[in-house]
Amino acid sequence: MTGLAGLDWIAVDWGTTRLRVWAMDRAGQVLAQAASDRGIAALDGAGHEAALLALIGGWLPDPALVQGRLPVLACGMVGSRQGWIEAPYRAVPCLPLAAVGLVAAPVADPRLAVWLVPGLMQAQAADVMRGEEVQIAGFLAAAPDFDGVLCLPGTHAKWARISAGEVVSFQTFMTGELFALLSERSVLRHGMAGEGWDEAAFDAGVEVALARPERLAARLFSIRAEGLLQGLTPGAARARLSGLLIGAELAGAKPYWLGQDVALVGAEALTALYGRALAQMGMQVRQCDGGTAVLAGLTAARAILREKER
Amino acid sequence: MTGLAGLDWIAVDWGTTRLRVWAMDRAGQVLAQAASDRGIAALDGAGHEAALLALIGGWLPDPALVQGRLPVLACGMVGSRQGWIEAPYRAVPCLPLAAVGLVAAPVADPRLAVWLVPGLMQAQAADVMRGEEVQIAGFLAAAPDFDGVLCLPGTHAKWARISAGEVVSFQTFMTGELFALLSERSVLRHGMAGEGWDEAAFDAGVEVALARPERLAARLFSIRAEGLLQGLTPGAARARLSGLLIGAELAGAKPYWLGQDVALVGAEALTALYGRALAQMGMQVRQCDGGTAVLAGLTAARAILREKER
Repeated sequence: MTGLAGLDWIAVDWGTTRLRVWAMDRAGQVLAQAASDRGIAALDGAGHEAALLALIGGWLPDPALVQGRLPVLACGMVGSRQGWIEAPYRAVPCLPLAAVGLVAAPVADPRLAVWLVPGLMQAQAADVMRGEEVQIAGFLAAAPDFDGVLCLPGTHAKWARISAGEVVSFQTFMTGELFALLSERSVLRHGMAGEGWDEAAFDAGVEVALARPERLAARLFSIRAEGLLQGLTPGAARARLSGLLIGAELAGAKPYWLGQDVALVGAEALTALYGRALAQMGMQVRQCDGGTAVLAGLTAARAILREKER
Repeated sequence: MTGLAGLDWIAVDWGTTRLRVWAMDRAGQVLAQAASDRGIAALDGAGHEAALLALIGGWLPDPALVQGRLPVLACGMVGSRQGWIEAPYRAVPCLPLAAVGLVAAPVADPRLAVWLVPGLMQAQAADVMRGEEVQIAGFLAAAPDFDGVLCLPGTHAKWARISAGEVVSFQTFMTGELFALLSERSVLRHGMAGEGWDEAAFDAGVEVALARPERLAARLFSIRAEGLLQGLTPGAARARLSGLLIGAELAGAKPYWLGQDVALVGAEALTALYGRALAQMGMQVRQCDGGTAVLAGLTAARAILREKER
């Protein structure tokens, strides 16, 4: 068993619910990839090495044939207090990645050297990110002169001011988690069973939330009331909820995007929604795939590690 | 078995999660009471009569001794589409209770006549209530000349304009449900395990949400970040969350309370929080116990039924 030919290092995106791995060659090309649902929450603080080997074991050479350890670069909640080992936050303003922050995780397998990328923190106003700093680094690898604001939609959406390659400041909005809780676990779930998406309802939700963001908790219940009294369809209900929450986020994040060069980084369906909402404000923003950004960011981390080890 | 001496009718508050019953005499005094967790959600559309008899069966006389049916007056989600039988909403503006709206539920037991109190609806802006209309009627039974605004905090908090004994308009805020979801099921739950309540944190949450309600989704995540970075205690985290959500509600409900005579009706711990938050705005409001109001409202419904049957 000589393992996967040309394997130079392994990229790992290890979040709360998912573990994704890529086998990379020296030129930064993907040789193979795999994923599992063994996220940090499922592991409960133990078994990280086994969960990783379950995905990458087949790529590795026989232990008897090994010369040196293969670098594994991992980002996300794997570096949190509840993860493999804590990679302490670095404080902004700072570069999204730095050799000094990489933390070696304890491994028993002699073939691996696992490095965790630390998240970023901000003291005032208190805020944290883990994983998004790698996407930011990946975006900047392709656009090193970018000076503006990055929005990374998701469970905990981030808005980050970028200047001279550094993350100057950032702010987190719980928009994605609120959408999941309200659409799946609140009284609103009754009106959201079924498929469909009503773009006009999304646009109206954005508009009303931007105009009167303080009414959010009342507008949310109106989705239920209109379902009962006026037959609001599930597709309109879900789109309205999304529009209300994204509109409220845009209202709160206005100091970030107003008059700025803004780029969206994330899953395509989600960045498209944010792009549509920002277009209502007259903003034209570029959209970048989050998966591509993660891989580009981990590749940048690999280059930094190579410098460090030189 | 002659049943409970002096029993004249039975009051029932039947919500999503709880069933509460009171044995009442002709003078409106409580002879006995009982409760179970067989709320509407637990029954799943069937077994309402059995769930009721499980609590009140011991109060009833032997079927052979019965002369006429004992009135049972019930309010809450029992009259919803998912309840015993639908009691269609009455449209505001209207009195909180009216003989015309009472709906007879189908019963097999010859000793009972079960009447459901309907909820209220508002066409524009679409809104609904079920159960709170009885609390409003109970409040007005003790204060028939009240002209102002009632706030009924809870899972779905209601603000209702009252004039000439009628509910003129109302608005629902999902504040209580948001608190439950965020404190028990979101990422914020990690910082809220344990006891304690920090009043200063509550006050600060109210203040910041009233000043900048559009920042709510960002302020929520700051609870998590301050827990990680600055050791925010569980008591401060929970109180801050409560303050943020109640402050955001007050910001949205400002057209209701500003310059009005306001009274709070609900559970004592909750009306105290709302009273404290409104006091920050310079508002002094009276607080009324919600349980007392329910019973007074059902007593008013009993009187209306007596008129109807005369």
